[in-house]
Amino acid sequence: MITKEEALLKVEPKQLDQLLHPNFDADSLKNAKVVATGLAASPGAATGRIYFTAEDVMAAKENGVQDILLVRLETSPEDIEGMNIAHGILTIRGGMTSHAAVVARGMGTCCVSGCGVLKIDEEAKVLTLPDGRELHEGDYMSLDGSTGNVYAEEVKTVEPIIEGDFDTFMGWADEARKLKVRTNADTPRDAKQARTFGAEGIGLCRTEHMFFEEERIFNFRRMITAETLEAREEALEKILPYQRDDFEQLFKAMEGYGVNIRFLDPPLHEFLPHTDEEIKPLAESLGMTFEALKARVESLKEFNPMMGHRGCRLAVTYPEIAAMQTRAVIEAAINVNKEGLSVEPEIMIPLIGDTKELKFVKNVVVETADKIIAEAGVELNYKVGTMIEIPRAALTADKIAEDAEFFSFGTNDLTQMTYGFSRDDAAKFLSDYYSKQIFESDPFAKVDQEGVGQLMKIAVEKGRQTRPDIKLGICGEHGGEASSVEFCHRLGLTYVSCSPFRVPLARLAAAQAAVKEEMGIE
Amino acid sequence: MITKEEALLKVEPKQLDQLLHPNFDADSLKNAKVVATGLAASPGAATGRIYFTAEDVMAAKENGVQDILLVRLETSPEDIEGMNIAHGILTIRGGMTSHAAVVARGMGTCCVSGCGVLKIDEEAKVLTLPDGRELHEGDYMSLDGSTGNVYAEEVKTVEPIIEGDFDTFMGWADEARKLKVRTNADTPRDAKQARTFGAEGIGLCRTEHMFFEEERIFNFRRMITAETLEAREEALEKILPYQRDDFEQLFKAMEGYGVNIRFLDPPLHEFLPHTDEEIKPLAESLGMTFEALKARVESLKEFNPMMGHRGCRLAVTYPEIAAMQTRAVIEAAINVNKEGLSVEPEIMIPLIGDTKELKFVKNVVVETADKIIAEAGVELNYKVGTMIEIPRAALTADKIAEDAEFFSFGTNDLTQMTYGFSRDDAAKFLSDYYSKQIFESDPFAKVDQEGVGQLMKIAVEKGRQTRPDIKLGICGEHGGEASSVEFCHRLGLTYVSCSPFRVPLARLAAAQAAVKEEMGIE
Repeated sequence: MITKEEALLKVEPKQLDQLLHPNFDADSLKNAKVVATGLAASPGAATGRIYFTAEDVMAAKENGVQDILLVRLETSPEDIEGMNIAHGILTIRGGMTSHAAVVARGMGTCCVSGCGVLKIDEEAKVLTLPDGRELHEGDYMSLDGSTGNVYAEEVKTVEPIIEGDFDTFMGWADEARKLKVRTNADTPRDAKQARTFGAEGIGLCRTEHMFFEEERIFNFRRMITAETLEAREEALEKILPYQRDDFEQLFKAMEGYGVNIRFLDPPLHEFLPHTDEEIKPLAESLGMTFEALKARVESLKEFNPMMGHRGCRLAVTYPEIAAMQTRAVIEAAINVNKEGLSVEPEIMIPLIGDTKELKFVKNVVVETADKIIAEAGVELNYKVGTMIEIPRAALTADKIAEDAEFFSFGTNDLTQMTYGFSRDDAAKFLSDYYSKQIFESDPFAKVDQEGVGQLMKIAVEKGRQTRPDIKLGICGEHGGEASSVEFCHRLGLTYVSCSPFRVPLARLAAAQAAVKEEMGIE
Repeated sequence: MITKEEALLKVEPKQLDQLLHPNFDADSLKNAKVVATGLAASPGAATGRIYFTAEDVMAAKENGVQDILLVRLETSPEDIEGMNIAHGILTIRGGMTSHAAVVARGMGTCCVSGCGVLKIDEEAKVLTLPDGRELHEGDYMSLDGSTGNVYAEEVKTVEPIIEGDFDTFMGWADEARKLKVRTNADTPRDAKQARTFGAEGIGLCRTEHMFFEEERIFNFRRMITAETLEAREEALEKILPYQRDDFEQLFKAMEGYGVNIRFLDPPLHEFLPHTDEEIKPLAESLGMTFEALKARVESLKEFNPMMGHRGCRLAVTYPEIAAMQTRAVIEAAINVNKEGLSVEPEIMIPLIGDTKELKFVKNVVVETADKIIAEAGVELNYKVGTMIEIPRAALTADKIAEDAEFFSFGTNDLTQMTYGFSRDDAAKFLSDYYSKQIFESDPFAKVDQEGVGQLMKIAVEKGRQTRPDIKLGICGEHGGEASSVEFCHRLGLTYVSCSPFRVPLARLAAAQAAVKEEMGIE
């Protein structure tokens, strides 16, 4: 007989990850040959016939193909529907936080990303293996998203069997842990999925993911290409009902748990096409000349988009975007609260580096929100806070906490800026860092406690100095990695947030951190 | 009668900047109309006929045109010769540390950069003003590099008149200051210029600027496109004599003062062409197929080059580059020391974020250097140190100082990473930051003492903790800005380094900082 605590420490959190996804059949795997290795971007195993576009995936499904893999150079938001159907996703380019990786983890779909040793010709629909062999549409491949291994053949998979009483075990974990566990979710589907895994709220809702459906993206593009404030506000007015409806659904899915909504983050050029062939039809539908749209696309191009016009910088230039998003959040909260929920939305301003940026954007939010609340004649509490993802924000957290009611560590960006390398480019040279033993682990997977962690510690201390009860969370990918969760526990954060399928892992990791602390285990 | 100290405090350092450059004639300026304003990238005033390419500038000079301005979307290293001839440079794109801005400051040539309200058609050779007027090749314009103002007409300039005894005054400054003043110089010409302005050594020699002449760039491109170590070393062997000769000349120009040589820093794709038209002839001369070269160019492309495969990351992947550069530095020092100098070269490894990176590259340097020194049978001291330009390097400076014999703050990059915005992209949105009073000054011009300065302070303290006598310098653009120089004095740095024409300014600013401290003036 062992104690609950001992039982909790006996299970590797990573095992839970595997427990929730299909694995390869051991016998079938024994005879299979690894032809390439990419990044283990989203766990689980998948086997199937390969297709090179999201449309081909959808067509294959309609034609009755059972096992389907999507293979692409990299995925983009237009591929969502195909990604949803595919049993596994393989990309040639992109890191652990590329579109494919993030979306696949959210869906719980197996994904191997950044498998650069494979050559892809998307037009000709040919994938060339390192040994020169060519694979074509409909050929079989198999992917292991937990190791990054890729096979050019069918490897049988088995569904996970949960032995013993999973719920009892997780119940022990929940009793033991101090950290709350939230989820990163942008859709009601992800939110519901995360609830079944025990998520206690949404730690990160990336509102930009809500703009990608056909009609929405059209109005969003109208907004970007608008040349006057009036035209921009008109386009925003069209987007408002969608956003409001999205938020209502998220609030409902979360059943009263906290929902943290991050305002628009990526650079606007990510929403516009870049080739002449794509610009032409869009110009027509927007009622612009080809030249005018092309000039707008050109003017939005950036040398280093990761360090460009994004996050709160967009809200500084276009406060009307923040105002529209505030309206959507507040009206949605008022609507669902009328139905009996008691939602207190959390509005999160991304990419703050200076307290005056936050003051400026917060002003827009508060003015808009308070007016709507007063007009509706209701009571509604809401919080305004910020991401801590820019080194300067951590260093000046005492000042930022004057206006921020909560901090959420965006450790993806914080890692990028602290190291000075971008997650999309680093994959290429980090392999040399591992082989030459300069790095022991990927700082985008495990929090770098020495450097990035030092900034987090500074931010926690300075933030609490100004606002002792400040709510502190993490919403980077690290929120679903065991050693990082333990670090967050030691820092005394309020919650970690991770993709839905990682929630059980985070619950167990948080429990282990608490048990270890109590038992004095280093 | 006033004291020397009072005299020193009476002169604005910025005035010295103007004292060394032509200014507009006051009467002529009165009637001139500002048609646009860009960034005040390099001080002085210039008037002349505009030309749209470096070649056209050179042709105009040969045809006897007296006053010449170069106008370009942005400049690149191929434009150097034309920039050298032009009396002023205007670019439509690029910030305070763009190629045009940095090179112009080094040359002491007036430059307005990033003047985005002007539209340029380089092929048609047309510049369109905000009011729609078009200027063509040979039309007159005038530029004020101290304010950023642009005029579409001739405005007479006057050469500066130095009143009083400039040398006596600067002598007082030198007596008073504690900070040494070095210069950023990559050519013997810049180095000599800086010496006449009183520079006490080179704080930053950007070795990549040495690769741009025709024959060198050819061999450098051979190195980049080499597919085997042998082919790469063969190409490096061809570059070695040039680098060695460059260093010999720099050492001689500096007359025994310290010379700090930064190893290769920018991403390799910056050295390759990107359009099919340019790739074709290069492929031919390199003996490669067009497809192979194009594939290599593609494979080197990066999403965020500023955060990509550059700095010490290149030396980790290709240690042979660091070995070649070490050989060139050490052999050059041995050669000039035989002629009676006593040079102790300083080798600076850029973009360090982790102590293990430095250990790895330092090993390559020390092994190579010690072997050459032993073979030559001479005594030669040299130092190996690092830039502090990545936030993580500042945060872990205690560990980095175990291997670094000096730190030099690269405050351009450090500002980029600490704020999380790139200097090339920020110009666009920072105008909103000024108009909305979020920022009071450009953090790329004046050190942000609160954030970036906090990291510098951490690095100074932690560095000294490990190595009390560590030599500390700054080589970012800030080394030539008065309030930043004062900040460096208060931090207790050893020296500041700035472009040649800023050296007098830095000498005075350093003196004022020392006098203020002594007199207890805040």
